[in-house]
Amino acid sequence: MNLKGINIPVLSYLSEKKFITGRELSNQFGISRVAVWKQIQKLKKLGYIISADNKKGYRIVSSADILLPHEIYRNLHTKCIGKQIFYYNKVTSTNSMAKETIKDKKDYFQEGTVIIADIQTAGRGRLGRTWYSPLGGIWLTIVLFPNLEPVYISKITLMTAVVLVQSIRKLYDIPVQIKWPNDVVVKGKKLCGILTEMAAESDCINYVAVGIGVNANLKGEDFPKDVRGKSISLLEILEKSISRVKLVQLLLEDFEKYYHLLQQQQFTPILQEWKLNAETLGKNITILSAGQKITGKAIDITSEGALVIRKEGRETVNILSGTVQ
Amino acid sequence: MNLKGINIPVLSYLSEKKFITGRELSNQFGISRVAVWKQIQKLKKLGYIISADNKKGYRIVSSADILLPHEIYRNLHTKCIGKQIFYYNKVTSTNSMAKETIKDKKDYFQEGTVIIADIQTAGRGRLGRTWYSPLGGIWLTIVLFPNLEPVYISKITLMTAVVLVQSIRKLYDIPVQIKWPNDVVVKGKKLCGILTEMAAESDCINYVAVGIGVNANLKGEDFPKDVRGKSISLLEILEKSISRVKLVQLLLEDFEKYYHLLQQQQFTPILQEWKLNAETLGKNITILSAGQKITGKAIDITSEGALVIRKEGRETVNILSGTVQ
Repeated sequence: MNLKGINIPVLSYLSEKKFITGRELSNQFGISRVAVWKQIQKLKKLGYIISADNKKGYRIVSSADILLPHEIYRNLHTKCIGKQIFYYNKVTSTNSMAKETIKDKKDYFQEGTVIIADIQTAGRGRLGRTWYSPLGGIWLTIVLFPNLEPVYISKITLMTAVVLVQSIRKLYDIPVQIKWPNDVVVKGKKLCGILTEMAAESDCINYVAVGIGVNANLKGEDFPKDVRGKSISLLEILEKSISRVKLVQLLLEDFEKYYHLLQQQQFTPILQEWKLNAETLGKNITILSAGQKITGKAIDITSEGALVIRKEGRETVNILSGTVQ
Repeated sequence: MNLKGINIPVLSYLSEKKFITGRELSNQFGISRVAVWKQIQKLKKLGYIISADNKKGYRIVSSADILLPHEIYRNLHTKCIGKQIFYYNKVTSTNSMAKETIKDKKDYFQEGTVIIADIQTAGRGRLGRTWYSPLGGIWLTIVLFPNLEPVYISKITLMTAVVLVQSIRKLYDIPVQIKWPNDVVVKGKKLCGILTEMAAESDCINYVAVGIGVNANLKGEDFPKDVRGKSISLLEILEKSISRVKLVQLLLEDFEKYYHLLQQQQFTPILQEWKLNAETLGKNITILSAGQKITGKAIDITSEGALVIRKEGRETVNILSGTVQ
């Protein structure tokens, strides 16, 4: 997936056309016929299947699984989420990139803008943890400007977990579950993570950056030693590569659907789905919260996203923030 | 309060010493004796009373009411809030300055750091409104890194309103009241405003910037036309200037006291004080919230900071965000 040397405008143009001759491409972009030919060879090397007709010219028969905006736009059935996508081959972190861009030029983004990257060099998880983000995964951030109060941020995180479970289930027959508060797991191993960040005033959200990481086409050896055994990829589970473009499209579509519900104040069905898919509920667990260890049975989740724990003495506590050990 | 030409290090040094000769100052700062003499004249012009003894040298007998850190540090009885103060003669907005500094170099700030300015050129209120901030007022931001969930932000705003009421009442005999959600008023006219901003993840606050504006020594004509009649200053009420330094000190001390309560999860007494001092409660009001007008009697406030309105049909609604008209 090394895009070095690829002329992205040429590729986008080629993708939009049914047929286009080398001469037309050459004229359109002011590059030589040889340069056009070289581009075609590079695209083929990346996995594009391109037919060449003597008269009609080139045509993309099938695309490589590259997260370029034009690949995602094609067949994306949303009204808002992902209608504007910024792609980076390599970025520190899509959430950081979103935050910095909003700070400098807020008008640059619209509701539902997506930042997506092939590699994150400084991917982040909750509480400042590192999220390892090599080539092959899906690392993206959805930017929202909701007309909601700050308390909604945990609802957005819960909702995103439901969206991930739904999208993955629809495409692959995998027993994905949600681990409180923000991971999607398969048999206890981490498949996806969510990092929701916001800037807010006392009674209104300025913006939310919903960071989503999916260990899509990662091999076992792609994971660093310290997370091996704790993380898993779709490639490992399915024993074959998935189409990242397809999963991103479905994910954005489901996100839009659920986000619409949330904005209509219809959080109850989302919470119900969360509960139905929760790995954490019904289990005896130990949680590290604010430096304290709390042990008990996870019996419920509140609409604020707090996990309800019944301790041994039958007393229940609501925990808003913590890590299940 | 024009500090142009004032050598702040010389002033701070002078403030710390009982007596210091012109020669010592000249040596210490590598400036001429004439330059020292000029500094003393400028300080006198600013309102400092400085005695000059032929042998012992200069001594500050009393300070001008300038918000310089060394003036505030002196007699400030706090452990954390305001132990580090950054002063600006002129700044766009103390909240904006705080946010930018934290973004670039977070370690620069500690819990309770204060940014204070004599003039804000782009002071902000809630919802992007302008807060007019000329010379004579108190414009400051308290930076907090609380180990609390994002939902606490509205509690911090409610708490700050209580702090303002307490501090002002202790120093001046004025009937200050709180207008939901974040103003302190006298007979319905705005005396202080609060702008609380935060950056947060789903379950933890990264930082909070509590912006406080007090119309302290502002004359009627200092207010722009569009807020005249709606705003008021301490100078107007008391018919004399107040010591801004003294009010800032008390405000920081009270803030520390209440913030400690909040961190100990003891919000109930704070909420009680809020209710006792609320102008809004018990009144028939109209609120503009999310584009809708809601009319009814304000009967209570919830611990989340929502105003409880009883509408004509006896139905009650909780409003988290809005503007009382």
